[in-house]
Amino acid sequence: MSLDTVLARIDGEMPAALDRLMDLLRIPSISTDPAYKQACDSAADWLVADLASMGIAAEKRPTPGHPMVVGHVDGPGPHILFYGHYDVQPVDPLDLWDRDPFDPALEETAKGQVIRARGASDDKGQLMTFLEACRAWKGVHGSLPCKITFFFEGEEESGSPSLVPFMQENAAELKADLALICDTGLFQSKAPAIITRLRGLLGQEVTIRGASKDLHSGMYGGVAMNPIRVLTRILGGLFDDKGRIQVPEFYEGVPDLPAEIAAQWQALDFDAAAFLGDVGLSQPAGESDRSPIEMIWSRPTAEINGIRGGYAGAGFKTVLPAEASAKISFRLVGQQDPLAIRENFQAWVRAQVPADCSVTFTDYSASAASEMGTSHPAFEQARAALAQEWNQPAAYAGCGGSIPIAGYFQQILGMDAMLVGWGKDDDQLHSPNEKYDLESFHKGIRSWARVLDAVSR
Amino acid sequence: MSLDTVLARIDGEMPAALDRLMDLLRIPSISTDPAYKQACDSAADWLVADLASMGIAAEKRPTPGHPMVVGHVDGPGPHILFYGHYDVQPVDPLDLWDRDPFDPALEETAKGQVIRARGASDDKGQLMTFLEACRAWKGVHGSLPCKITFFFEGEEESGSPSLVPFMQENAAELKADLALICDTGLFQSKAPAIITRLRGLLGQEVTIRGASKDLHSGMYGGVAMNPIRVLTRILGGLFDDKGRIQVPEFYEGVPDLPAEIAAQWQALDFDAAAFLGDVGLSQPAGESDRSPIEMIWSRPTAEINGIRGGYAGAGFKTVLPAEASAKISFRLVGQQDPLAIRENFQAWVRAQVPADCSVTFTDYSASAASEMGTSHPAFEQARAALAQEWNQPAAYAGCGGSIPIAGYFQQILGMDAMLVGWGKDDDQLHSPNEKYDLESFHKGIRSWARVLDAVSR
Repeated sequence: MSLDTVLARIDGEMPAALDRLMDLLRIPSISTDPAYKQACDSAADWLVADLASMGIAAEKRPTPGHPMVVGHVDGPGPHILFYGHYDVQPVDPLDLWDRDPFDPALEETAKGQVIRARGASDDKGQLMTFLEACRAWKGVHGSLPCKITFFFEGEEESGSPSLVPFMQENAAELKADLALICDTGLFQSKAPAIITRLRGLLGQEVTIRGASKDLHSGMYGGVAMNPIRVLTRILGGLFDDKGRIQVPEFYEGVPDLPAEIAAQWQALDFDAAAFLGDVGLSQPAGESDRSPIEMIWSRPTAEINGIRGGYAGAGFKTVLPAEASAKISFRLVGQQDPLAIRENFQAWVRAQVPADCSVTFTDYSASAASEMGTSHPAFEQARAALAQEWNQPAAYAGCGGSIPIAGYFQQILGMDAMLVGWGKDDDQLHSPNEKYDLESFHKGIRSWARVLDAVSR
Repeated sequence: MSLDTVLARIDGEMPAALDRLMDLLRIPSISTDPAYKQACDSAADWLVADLASMGIAAEKRPTPGHPMVVGHVDGPGPHILFYGHYDVQPVDPLDLWDRDPFDPALEETAKGQVIRARGASDDKGQLMTFLEACRAWKGVHGSLPCKITFFFEGEEESGSPSLVPFMQENAAELKADLALICDTGLFQSKAPAIITRLRGLLGQEVTIRGASKDLHSGMYGGVAMNPIRVLTRILGGLFDDKGRIQVPEFYEGVPDLPAEIAAQWQALDFDAAAFLGDVGLSQPAGESDRSPIEMIWSRPTAEINGIRGGYAGAGFKTVLPAEASAKISFRLVGQQDPLAIRENFQAWVRAQVPADCSVTFTDYSASAASEMGTSHPAFEQARAALAQEWNQPAAYAGCGGSIPIAGYFQQILGMDAMLVGWGKDDDQLHSPNEKYDLESFHKGIRSWARVLDAVSR
């Protein structure tokens, strides 16, 4: 019963594993903000050193942005590539955090112990579940049960600009039989789930400019066009009364949901009331003729992620600003083409900009949706292993988020990716007070040991 | 020719007068931001000391907010109250300033020398024109030609919350024959103008709240209502296609412009193309069936002065924010009732807030429009004096801005106010790189000496 020995070692090593995760969480590796460039570099160094500490050769590999970390270890079983990202989201609004986001702590909560820090769940905690499983396995057996390539990125939260070129240049080195990605969650915070559908993501920043400088609204108000007025007018028309997105041809390539998948999802018995209730809401927004689970897993969306213009500080200032801008993201499904939608969106905005105003766009990520093949035998082996750890069946599920790398593994390296993770719905990813349940961390490590065992037999 | 002696002394004293103004401009007396409370206090102290330096007794008088400065000097002529404000607007966006806003300098420009600093024009430079005229007069004659009360406020840029109670409590002390207010500009940057119509101002901050915390748009996007979407939807409907404001009953109390005033304004030959061209614009916004001068002086407006929500920093963050807010101001005319409009605006917003979102309002200033009586003989005396200094007739004009104190002088102290000032259209009030022309400062001081002379004969 060598698996049991590994699982026992994992249980015994939890305090040390937690210390290591805390160490990594202390590094403020915010990739989108240039002020944290050095911290991203340090997080990459930390991972190289951690792999070295368990006898796995790894290197920090430069890119035009933040470095990649690549490590290799030989083994008898199938060749697996494991992917995670060491960068994290920005932390603002900082005043909504109950503690320093980069001073991690184990906290007691009504739902059990949680690890509180930026990146605890997304993705440092998840990434470390796989490393800790490897460490325990190697500690018991002296080697790993299959050939593994470790591949860590530091730009996932800022659109992964270096990823595709790096994969193309290093395709021979990175190609494996199957990719494992640990950046998703449990279904309804309790059941293990293998994600087979991911939405794509298109990010756009729109800036409207009017007068050549900020004006006094007493002097120019009413006579000079106000860029905030223009921006709110345009964005106020982004949805119709039924929640349908008004960008022309937006729904081109959005497939109908096949009846068999609709039936599968129906059977999952998704608790929309609890999902919304957890965050203080009760009414599904979005398309009024779709169910919540259908919206999240199979329908495209548009969200205004940020808006700014004029004076937004304390008190009041009667300024008529020279510019206003908003960040907008679209989640894409099926065959929706991100570049066509970008073009249509920009044309749709431009057509609404009045004389005396101009518009510029900043492009962020543009990735299509992806759907995983599940024919590799590891999928069914992993499902069985996961069911054992969590005492319930593992679902094939969709995911509302966008993990473009899953598509890149298919397109560039010709391998499918299995997306499994241990996050919960209330982890507050990308938000203040992000956490990762100690249960996610512990059972996540155990789950990976079981999966390694199952796929290596 | 004692006036000529005073004017000559003003000309000779310019370097010293400029030094004094620079001193006052170095004090960052931003009234709306609590971080600058001490600076506001220091500006009040500075004024008390400056009056004392010319032998005028003045005191800093406490209020629940920033202090008032009140000084008195006796004299033979009519009793005049002079009003100005020592507080200034915030300075952001700071990166658009070419120099530290509180490190004033005299700069050479294509249009002549300018004093560059926050408050140079609004209102420290203007306020000092009157004090310098008094100083020169007193230097030549040993006394002033009329009885003068000096009254300086430190909350004008933040809605003057302490002003009305202070005037009510000190009505006997402050009552004079006529108020002089120096917080307006030259007509078309060249002709002296006495402002007889001022718009009122209603300020509102609207905050929309949705989920109990920021959410990940991948997980909740499309299903959870986004407060930025709600806010832009509401504000996007603030105007119809003709620029008419859509708040119910908003135009109640807006008078038709009397034909004789329309004719007067027509005769002023306002150059709308130059007015807009100066700030990089060419098309009047606002109501499409009104002329620009009519819009600024006699029509109500709505402006969105600031908006914020979600992530607006560098890069991109796929957040679905818990809240979004905007600051909106209305300029009011005629008999428009600010309190009724506030109520109608709030009801109009509330009716558009969907289930699962809530709205709160923060009230800022709420002042009605005012119209000055011009029957006091000082008006025609001042017009003649101003025409001499500027070599062209002084107009009775309107003003798009809101100077509620003019109305308070009428309502609380039963005296009319004469609003005269030397600002130019390109002074960039409330904006980065605010300036005051050296010509405005110099001829402004001379103008006040002439006005004091004319009204005291």
